[in-house]
Amino acid sequence: MHAVDIIEKKRDKLELTPDEIKWFIDAYTRGDVADYQAAAFCMAVYLNGMTTDEITALTMAMAESGEILDLSEVSGYVVDKHSSGGVGDKTTLVVLPLVAALGVPVAKMSGRGLGLTGGTLDKLESTTGFNVRLTKEELMDYARINGLALGGQTRKLAPADDKLYSLRDVTGTIPSLALISSSIMSKKIAAGAQGIVLDVKVGLGAFMKDIDQARELAQTMVNIGRNVGRDMVAVISDMNQPLGRTVGNALEVAESIEILRGGGDEYVKAHCLEIAAYMLKLAGQGEKWTDIDAIKAELQEAIDSGAGLDKFRTMIKAQGGDVRMVDNTKLLAQARIKYPLKANQAGYVHQVAADQIARAAFELGAGRERKEDDIDLAVGLEVMVKVGDVVEAGQTLAIIHANDEVKLLHARKFAQSAFIVKDEPADPLPLFYGVIE
Amino acid sequence: MHAVDIIEKKRDKLELTPDEIKWFIDAYTRGDVADYQAAAFCMAVYLNGMTTDEITALTMAMAESGEILDLSEVSGYVVDKHSSGGVGDKTTLVVLPLVAALGVPVAKMSGRGLGLTGGTLDKLESTTGFNVRLTKEELMDYARINGLALGGQTRKLAPADDKLYSLRDVTGTIPSLALISSSIMSKKIAAGAQGIVLDVKVGLGAFMKDIDQARELAQTMVNIGRNVGRDMVAVISDMNQPLGRTVGNALEVAESIEILRGGGDEYVKAHCLEIAAYMLKLAGQGEKWTDIDAIKAELQEAIDSGAGLDKFRTMIKAQGGDVRMVDNTKLLAQARIKYPLKANQAGYVHQVAADQIARAAFELGAGRERKEDDIDLAVGLEVMVKVGDVVEAGQTLAIIHANDEVKLLHARKFAQSAFIVKDEPADPLPLFYGVIE
Repeated sequence: MHAVDIIEKKRDKLELTPDEIKWFIDAYTRGDVADYQAAAFCMAVYLNGMTTDEITALTMAMAESGEILDLSEVSGYVVDKHSSGGVGDKTTLVVLPLVAALGVPVAKMSGRGLGLTGGTLDKLESTTGFNVRLTKEELMDYARINGLALGGQTRKLAPADDKLYSLRDVTGTIPSLALISSSIMSKKIAAGAQGIVLDVKVGLGAFMKDIDQARELAQTMVNIGRNVGRDMVAVISDMNQPLGRTVGNALEVAESIEILRGGGDEYVKAHCLEIAAYMLKLAGQGEKWTDIDAIKAELQEAIDSGAGLDKFRTMIKAQGGDVRMVDNTKLLAQARIKYPLKANQAGYVHQVAADQIARAAFELGAGRERKEDDIDLAVGLEVMVKVGDVVEAGQTLAIIHANDEVKLLHARKFAQSAFIVKDEPADPLPLFYGVIE
Repeated sequence: MHAVDIIEKKRDKLELTPDEIKWFIDAYTRGDVADYQAAAFCMAVYLNGMTTDEITALTMAMAESGEILDLSEVSGYVVDKHSSGGVGDKTTLVVLPLVAALGVPVAKMSGRGLGLTGGTLDKLESTTGFNVRLTKEELMDYARINGLALGGQTRKLAPADDKLYSLRDVTGTIPSLALISSSIMSKKIAAGAQGIVLDVKVGLGAFMKDIDQARELAQTMVNIGRNVGRDMVAVISDMNQPLGRTVGNALEVAESIEILRGGGDEYVKAHCLEIAAYMLKLAGQGEKWTDIDAIKAELQEAIDSGAGLDKFRTMIKAQGGDVRMVDNTKLLAQARIKYPLKANQAGYVHQVAADQIARAAFELGAGRERKEDDIDLAVGLEVMVKVGDVVEAGQTLAIIHANDEVKLLHARKFAQSAFIVKDEPADPLPLFYGVIE
């Protein structure tokens, strides 16, 4: 095969065969197809799109460019979740202990990634000593013994995806439905999942700003997974306002623990129960956990009995984290300054822009721009109101947790611009815009 | 500016400013924009197109990436021609001496190029000793003294175009209207022309297979030239069958000389007079040579008087070629084998496929695939019939001039497939499909 022929075929809107796609990706991974050829290919895919069969072939070619983990020793049926990235998204920290508490072991490998706020691994490191550098064997051992383990990627999963993603980043070819969906799904499939619950965010703080686009992305990923024999569920969830009350690493761990204790914000709790319920439904494979409401009731029991928190505590302990911090979240890193951001006027909250809140958290030091950047685990924001709420003039809208006065000034500017309060009433935002199952 | 912003703008079908295009091309020429970024850009241009203003800016950015020749010392007004490449196209060899004979000096720099048959420089080298390696000063001196000089490119004209063309060749982005037209026009403008006659070929043996596409390419190039103050004419000419009776380097030189002597095939002669007439019309700048038919009559006089042949002879002599070969073309390189290809049946000629004839010539050794390949100047084909002609069974359709039996076998296969003879009559092909002036 020749790279140019494959590029021209895609350029001319013809459908590529799985063999052609596999050849191209393998040759690119080896370096036999040049970056400039892959760049032309990505732009042709961006502008002409791909059929579901093509996207499936691309996904599998990237998944198979490295090792595909076999976690079946941990659990006959491996269930995983993926969130397309949101602001204040601590779902994994709540969902995994609950699922494990109901007897489904979970071993999850996360990438650390870049972003305005920290990732799941960063958040967990808020419990001092927590070790995310697990070998695959350690990860599986912990999951087998405790029902739950969370580690960083020690091996390169789907290396072709990394290479292609870096190229897309500098050639204007990131926001392509075919390329985004195959990128996400290649990593999930390489991570060994049989059943996958996708949480596709839409709104100001999400990659997808438009509900129809988010639904299309979700449906595309569901189709890819099903094409290769995976069980798939996707929810399309709101990311116009932050998920839950906190944004920032230690703050989000504290909120997660609060939810596992039976407290917390109703929104984020309902979100977590939905994701956990679908994970269990997939794990039940039609023989168990068939009714979502019944599963949610079981999950609520796991909260009420403390079984979920117990799983969380066990994981923290097993991986070397300071378990006292779980029992007393005041021991988690605390910021020096707690600055209350107040409402200028009375009225109804029309907007709590997740993107501006995330930017504020980034200004405080909660995220990283480059891999080598340090994160300040203590900083972030507590967001006290949601869209639709009534506020009085002078009421605290958010508390900014900062360790530096200058950073606080920058953060405050973004935080302030996040809130819109008006005289006329505003409808609350929904949690979900749809489920594909 | 950032390369990615410019790529994304073109990706999103927005119009780029001249500054953005100039920045991108300059940065790419310097190496500050990577090949993979230029490849993504070219694919976006391929699929989304460019406005005339964008193509003009791209043309000028590439023209200005190197030296723009100033040939005004040779002639106050510099007129040039460009052919989009054809089979048996010896127009330059006939047209330039005739134009020079009418008092308009011509100094033309040609690239050597690749292709199935040799270029103008290769053809001229059939007159043993002819030197195409002229400095710019030599080229201008010869043109000033003799009215005519033809040399190879000693300096890199429009180096950005070379770099981009090589990239396009391996990324499936050659056949783009915007990229083809800017590539051709950047070279012409860099070569210093004020007035340009474009000969855009269409048909089996041309890059453009479709008349509407050829017309669009011609109109686009005319628009570019006029946008930057050049005087432009374009003719759209047939390239379904070879131009004239010969294909091959020495064979084409002999045919050109025959035309200059007043003989030759009526088709190719009429083609040459048309191109020459428009060059003179441009050179006359509305004050002289305003009527095409009158100019053609003057050109016919230059043939009849021998003035055109005289200019040709003078050029060959000045540049060191063996002038005896001009006066006796039998002294030009002769192939060892002359194989007559005969008609299998009586009937009317429906096709003399220029692409198959060119391929046959290539198999004989008339062209080169790589820059370093040698050309056999003697080989080629004499094509004895044209579409519309009546032939008898056994009549000679073509004579294959070969120096190698095995190559002859390969060439014969392609030559045979070029001819279609049927019982029903066929209309002759037109010479031209239109003129843009």
